[in-house]
Amino acid sequence: MAKKLTKFILPEKDMPTSWYNILPDLPEPLPPILHPQTHEPTILPPPLFPSTLNDQEFSKEHFIEIPDEVLDVYKMYRPTPLIRAYRLEKALGTPAQIFYKYEGVSPAGSHKLNTAIAQAYYNKKAGLKQVSYNQKLYRRIMMETWGAKVVASPSTDTNFGKQVLAEDPNCPGSLGMAISEACEDAFSRDDTSYSLGSVLNHVILHQSIIGLETKKQLEMADVEADIIIGCVGGGSNFGGLAVPFVKDKMKGKKIEIIAVEPTACPSMTKGPLAWDLGDVAGMAPIVMMYTLGHSFIPSPIHAGGLRYHGMSPLVSHLHKLKLIDARAVNQKATFESAIQFARTEGIIPAPEPSHAIKVTIDEALKCKESGQKKVIVLGLSGHGHFDLSAYEQFLSGKLEADAYDEAKVKQALAQLPKIDYVAPK
Amino acid sequence: MAKKLTKFILPEKDMPTSWYNILPDLPEPLPPILHPQTHEPTILPPPLFPSTLNDQEFSKEHFIEIPDEVLDVYKMYRPTPLIRAYRLEKALGTPAQIFYKYEGVSPAGSHKLNTAIAQAYYNKKAGLKQVSYNQKLYRRIMMETWGAKVVASPSTDTNFGKQVLAEDPNCPGSLGMAISEACEDAFSRDDTSYSLGSVLNHVILHQSIIGLETKKQLEMADVEADIIIGCVGGGSNFGGLAVPFVKDKMKGKKIEIIAVEPTACPSMTKGPLAWDLGDVAGMAPIVMMYTLGHSFIPSPIHAGGLRYHGMSPLVSHLHKLKLIDARAVNQKATFESAIQFARTEGIIPAPEPSHAIKVTIDEALKCKESGQKKVIVLGLSGHGHFDLSAYEQFLSGKLEADAYDEAKVKQALAQLPKIDYVAPK
Repeated sequence: MAKKLTKFILPEKDMPTSWYNILPDLPEPLPPILHPQTHEPTILPPPLFPSTLNDQEFSKEHFIEIPDEVLDVYKMYRPTPLIRAYRLEKALGTPAQIFYKYEGVSPAGSHKLNTAIAQAYYNKKAGLKQVSYNQKLYRRIMMETWGAKVVASPSTDTNFGKQVLAEDPNCPGSLGMAISEACEDAFSRDDTSYSLGSVLNHVILHQSIIGLETKKQLEMADVEADIIIGCVGGGSNFGGLAVPFVKDKMKGKKIEIIAVEPTACPSMTKGPLAWDLGDVAGMAPIVMMYTLGHSFIPSPIHAGGLRYHGMSPLVSHLHKLKLIDARAVNQKATFESAIQFARTEGIIPAPEPSHAIKVTIDEALKCKESGQKKVIVLGLSGHGHFDLSAYEQFLSGKLEADAYDEAKVKQALAQLPKIDYVAPK
Repeated sequence: MAKKLTKFILPEKDMPTSWYNILPDLPEPLPPILHPQTHEPTILPPPLFPSTLNDQEFSKEHFIEIPDEVLDVYKMYRPTPLIRAYRLEKALGTPAQIFYKYEGVSPAGSHKLNTAIAQAYYNKKAGLKQVSYNQKLYRRIMMETWGAKVVASPSTDTNFGKQVLAEDPNCPGSLGMAISEACEDAFSRDDTSYSLGSVLNHVILHQSIIGLETKKQLEMADVEADIIIGCVGGGSNFGGLAVPFVKDKMKGKKIEIIAVEPTACPSMTKGPLAWDLGDVAGMAPIVMMYTLGHSFIPSPIHAGGLRYHGMSPLVSHLHKLKLIDARAVNQKATFESAIQFARTEGIIPAPEPSHAIKVTIDEALKCKESGQKKVIVLGLSGHGHFDLSAYEQFLSGKLEADAYDEAKVKQALAQLPKIDYVAPK
């Protein structure tokens, strides 16, 4: 039997039992979040969030224990595998070693469950019965199978949604709009809290289990990472994978950490670092982040999870501190890379992590030229089983390259809020 | 941290390196296959099959070594996990221990890859360039993403397909028809072989890795199986899971092994054991099996993989020898069970294994009544990511119960071939 190990499987007993909180380790503190009306530092607005999650959002603890109940549910699919991409390496003819951390093994098919489970737990403990999720539309039936009711944004269920649809009945929506609607709905009732999939610190905290596991698995593989690559929309998948490696980098370790965003929504590669609204309607707090302007509606690319006008304040801060790099890639190129990945590694990736696959292939080909045997770790945040129509479009030659709409961004950036607040040094 | 283990993960190094061949262990030999014209014992017709697969089909070896190249590809997703269904047990209030062997982690989402990889390997070794697969239609885009061309059966690409469509342009097709078309196509060219997903011995041989792994994983869990449950269409998923346990049963171990089929296509629970054609057109060999008649077209239930008029000769033989039991369940009940499974265990199962889930729940509830702490092993052959429209139909109350069409079966059974051949004792 062939001896080489393909999958690095961490035993359940070695699964991390704490999440990693990078906040107290940062060389410069993260700016506060500001109240959308007063522009003063604020907390996560109750009743939208239970106090436990607010505490985690601003925690000074280096590690936060994962509750037993959450660990039990994690064990339905975690630890997730770290897989060596032998076939892709061979196809590329690269001396690089490519590993991918595969979050698609979760029942929902992506990393989103890592924080959804934790948030559902803390909300339930706070006495709430219902939690609403902010996920892809084509996952609707799946969520209904699990017992949820799903509403597409923009919807006629909220005043904000009605207003948006009155202006443009065909509006494709955006994460910023969906957040506004979810906030409005949660503010208007007692039994409902707001659970979000990305952007905030506590979400990245919960996702840190991805990076913590990956570090242990690289030890099993007896290698150290030279390059970490993940896709960014709100920043949670990338942040969760990256923070434990950022910690090493702050301690002096040489490691390249690359966040990949779409050409159509390039907040970090084209936007300024500025105070902006987290959502379109201005109900969520104002945060310091790389942004294209809260009123910017990205073109409807298939990587819906990357269509956010801004970027997680924490990921933005890491970028500002030059602890991570950012790159933008075109949708068409990401599908080409996705097909190459599928035909070598078997797994059909979601359009979002296909952005990271594109840069992984780029880096592996650079190694081919230079002869460097770098270890590349790719965050494969989910599978593409619900994105097959996008693949069909690409395979039949109907997928167009997406473009950066500079005029629209300029217009949106003119609408940034004027903020006088200056964070103390 | 909660100590109980949820997933029993076999390390790659402990993955079985041989498939188990039950043929030489049978207390009564399996009848031969007969030539469709001469009605004499025959081999798998070349050039449809390479000689290596024909050798495996009739092998007298107890174990057949898995080639290194196949093991390497298996390691992309194997060993697959054996998972304890703690949440389902709790929801049912049963003292039974329920384990499920989950084949949905394969890139294709089901157990089918186990034999597809092996067949592709032997065909490639025999110098063939192309292998055609016989799988679900809604997997079309996935297969195209991997580089295949997919044709829906009945098609206008074959004479048989044209004939079927001339008689009924809306014919829903069946596995028996698709096999006829694939045979016709493969017979008509030199560069093409026929790869099938089920029915034949060598397919069950390749699938035996499921049961071999499961046995090792039950040892890890320190339990012995009392009941094994799998769904049957052609019989490969069930057969692969069952044969190592049938071996134990032949040696005197007390174990119940249940094959579950749909009410709409109940070959083992309603059909006679008889010589019948393996395909509708009579191109494939004639085999001794439980059958509803090769001209029977099952109603278009969602579990397309179970719509075969007959049953694997090997599984039929095991049933005749009372080494396994068979039960038929209704489509509507299977979706109810599938929803309960999804809401407790997270995974949304394919309609096919949902038949096995229904019987697993029935057996667990029997344990609840009797207080028996049985160990139940469920074969969860694939996920339902490509069957979500069926879930939507069920959730919106539009799914009708399927019925057994006795008149149609009677008509089809009248068309069984008349065979004089008597197998020697």
